[in-house]
Amino acid sequence: MMKFSLFGQRFTQQAGILELMEDLGRALESPEGKIMLGGGNPASIPEMNRIWRKRLSEILSQEGEIEALVAQYDAPGGRESFKRAMASFLSRNFHWELGPENIVVTGGSQAGCFLLFNLLSGEFAGGHQRKILFPLAPEYIGYADQGLSPGQFVSHRPRVVEEEAPFFKYYVDFSDLTVGPEIGALCAGRPTNPTGNVLTDGEVHHLAGLARDAGIPLILDNAYGAPFPSILFEPVEPYWDNNTVLSMSLSKLGLPSARTGILVAPESVASAVASANAILNLTNPGLGQALVQPLIENDALLMLSRQVIKPFYLARRDFALEVVAKVFGQRFPYRIHRPQGSIFLWFWFPTLTIGTRELYRRLKERGLLVVPGDGFFFGLGPEDQDWTHRRQCVRVHYARKPEEVEAGLKILADLVEEAERS
Amino acid sequence: MMKFSLFGQRFTQQAGILELMEDLGRALESPEGKIMLGGGNPASIPEMNRIWRKRLSEILSQEGEIEALVAQYDAPGGRESFKRAMASFLSRNFHWELGPENIVVTGGSQAGCFLLFNLLSGEFAGGHQRKILFPLAPEYIGYADQGLSPGQFVSHRPRVVEEEAPFFKYYVDFSDLTVGPEIGALCAGRPTNPTGNVLTDGEVHHLAGLARDAGIPLILDNAYGAPFPSILFEPVEPYWDNNTVLSMSLSKLGLPSARTGILVAPESVASAVASANAILNLTNPGLGQALVQPLIENDALLMLSRQVIKPFYLARRDFALEVVAKVFGQRFPYRIHRPQGSIFLWFWFPTLTIGTRELYRRLKERGLLVVPGDGFFFGLGPEDQDWTHRRQCVRVHYARKPEEVEAGLKILADLVEEAERS
Repeated sequence: MMKFSLFGQRFTQQAGILELMEDLGRALESPEGKIMLGGGNPASIPEMNRIWRKRLSEILSQEGEIEALVAQYDAPGGRESFKRAMASFLSRNFHWELGPENIVVTGGSQAGCFLLFNLLSGEFAGGHQRKILFPLAPEYIGYADQGLSPGQFVSHRPRVVEEEAPFFKYYVDFSDLTVGPEIGALCAGRPTNPTGNVLTDGEVHHLAGLARDAGIPLILDNAYGAPFPSILFEPVEPYWDNNTVLSMSLSKLGLPSARTGILVAPESVASAVASANAILNLTNPGLGQALVQPLIENDALLMLSRQVIKPFYLARRDFALEVVAKVFGQRFPYRIHRPQGSIFLWFWFPTLTIGTRELYRRLKERGLLVVPGDGFFFGLGPEDQDWTHRRQCVRVHYARKPEEVEAGLKILADLVEEAERS
Repeated sequence: MMKFSLFGQRFTQQAGILELMEDLGRALESPEGKIMLGGGNPASIPEMNRIWRKRLSEILSQEGEIEALVAQYDAPGGRESFKRAMASFLSRNFHWELGPENIVVTGGSQAGCFLLFNLLSGEFAGGHQRKILFPLAPEYIGYADQGLSPGQFVSHRPRVVEEEAPFFKYYVDFSDLTVGPEIGALCAGRPTNPTGNVLTDGEVHHLAGLARDAGIPLILDNAYGAPFPSILFEPVEPYWDNNTVLSMSLSKLGLPSARTGILVAPESVASAVASANAILNLTNPGLGQALVQPLIENDALLMLSRQVIKPFYLARRDFALEVVAKVFGQRFPYRIHRPQGSIFLWFWFPTLTIGTRELYRRLKERGLLVVPGDGFFFGLGPEDQDWTHRRQCVRVHYARKPEEVEAGLKILADLVEEAERS
């Protein structure tokens, strides 16, 4: 029997997230009869695939380009030309004062966040610990196990505001949000996976001020946001300042397999991430940078995001909402987080008593995969243990094929209704 | 001033390896007048680039293939079809009893080793620590900082055997090699970066036995070895058993930018690496797997490795050895580790007193980048502090363009001679 370290035990003892990932993996391998509203795979948008095909053809047709694509170790913080292009793109479009020294590329934003979280929290010299504070639970489940130390993540229960039916929205509860010396960074998704929440401009400025006052960075995970991929349906301002780390990704452009994340960060953070990346990963995959660089240089990516990607997801979202209205009707109480961005609908069933783990199990038996919501509420305190809301939410991927979404939402309605009756 | 964790301080306080990497990075960005015998970039072999170009054209011409290339999150341990192809390729060619459950793909072998080392060593339940033992120092400098705990790596001083001039060779000194309960795994490169050493079949079997007796795995880093890329010039047997982790890479096929590593491992280890990879990195880049899979399925990669890659490097190695013989002559004492594999010549200057850090500095001033050897001797004990050999070695990349290699070796000879005279 192989003996694993504490680092390893986490990954070998079946944590909730891994069980879910295995379910998804198995379903992906034999998808017959399965309805996959669980994973986070972006949609395959034909118009975007045509762009990638064209870019690859260009690369193939140019002398020396293929060599640069596959045969060259890049600098561990990203290709210099890509970093220059990205810095210039952001300054040009948002008037942010930054340069290539503020850009660091990683092998996906998951890998970038792992490095960032563990640079800014965990064990510090002198034996004290620092934590990452997520000011607005629920947050991305993929963060939950990324801390190298136990208890490295804390999160803060939101204000839950019911809006015009069927919607509700989470807001940061600033009334009791304190940022003590044990906090190493604030972090929030904008738009948020799983809820589709988009922090208001006011919330972002408030958080940025709290971070600045505490002498720690604010991390904004912008994987779905502006300027790309723009799966963001609210007229909010993109935000960055020199105390902010903005995490961006090429995945939701339709390039998840390229594994390319970009952090826009204070220079000291960018440089530390690049160094840590060198030690852990040597360097990054080059494909994503090579495909996208010219589209950043000529601002085409802005247009594609606004005119292709955003309308595509908006139409899928609106279709899913129509199906919900039609299929759920008045059969049982439900709410949906106002879907302001990202590729998910976040359902809240306020009278559900069986818990979403049990609901998940029953849905899986009927061939529907979703993600039960409880895993997204990591980092809450003991005082939040009896907050029933956290066992009443479900994340549903809305951007799968319309017929799949419709069939899935019907099964969801049937089984929630059944659970409510029993 | 940004505060970093202990994890982070390692990467922000200038460790030796990072300084070297920065030098290399800067030189890569403005290569005019620089001779780059420092890095580990594989050569760009035209015949291999033609193969990759052809594969990419095939992918572009097939309906749906580009979508699979860029637009799909793979399972975190690798594409199922790729793992099946790899398992079948290895069983077919080496008669190893293994299946896809023994294969795990990572974002490069550097990333794979990071996960592996920290799963098998570091802090364990009950408060005890385990270490990785490298039985044959010097070893790959890229491992040196990968342990999450301090003192996680120990290495063992070799027997240094002088052979017919100018060669010498390191052998594992089994006379005082003990594998105590504090050891979590043995690890050795075969061929070794930096020395070009290839463990004999006898050494490998001896190490495998020691590992089995201790109930721990043997890790063999096979990034340069058989069956691919076959930058291995000795008639040794590839080795794997169900207590061994064989680390392989697509980089030295000419695909470093694809960031694809493959571990062939006991199932429990493969599965733990896949889970850890999911948490840290979500999943792997898909390009490398997509390019290479058909060449594994039809064994073409075997032929390409043996008939294209190996002869290419062998010719470059022999050219470099000829230049050394011509340029170094009898000007000062020198030895070269018998170059049995990998892409480096490992020089030992037995009468050099200035240390290779100082030599490195002087070479850099003259425009020649090499890697000073001392960083490869990590993990040795205090009793090895006054072993002067460790400050007398230099790693030289022999596979750069012949005129660059020749010019570089001339500068090396001049400055070593100068140092010996003073």
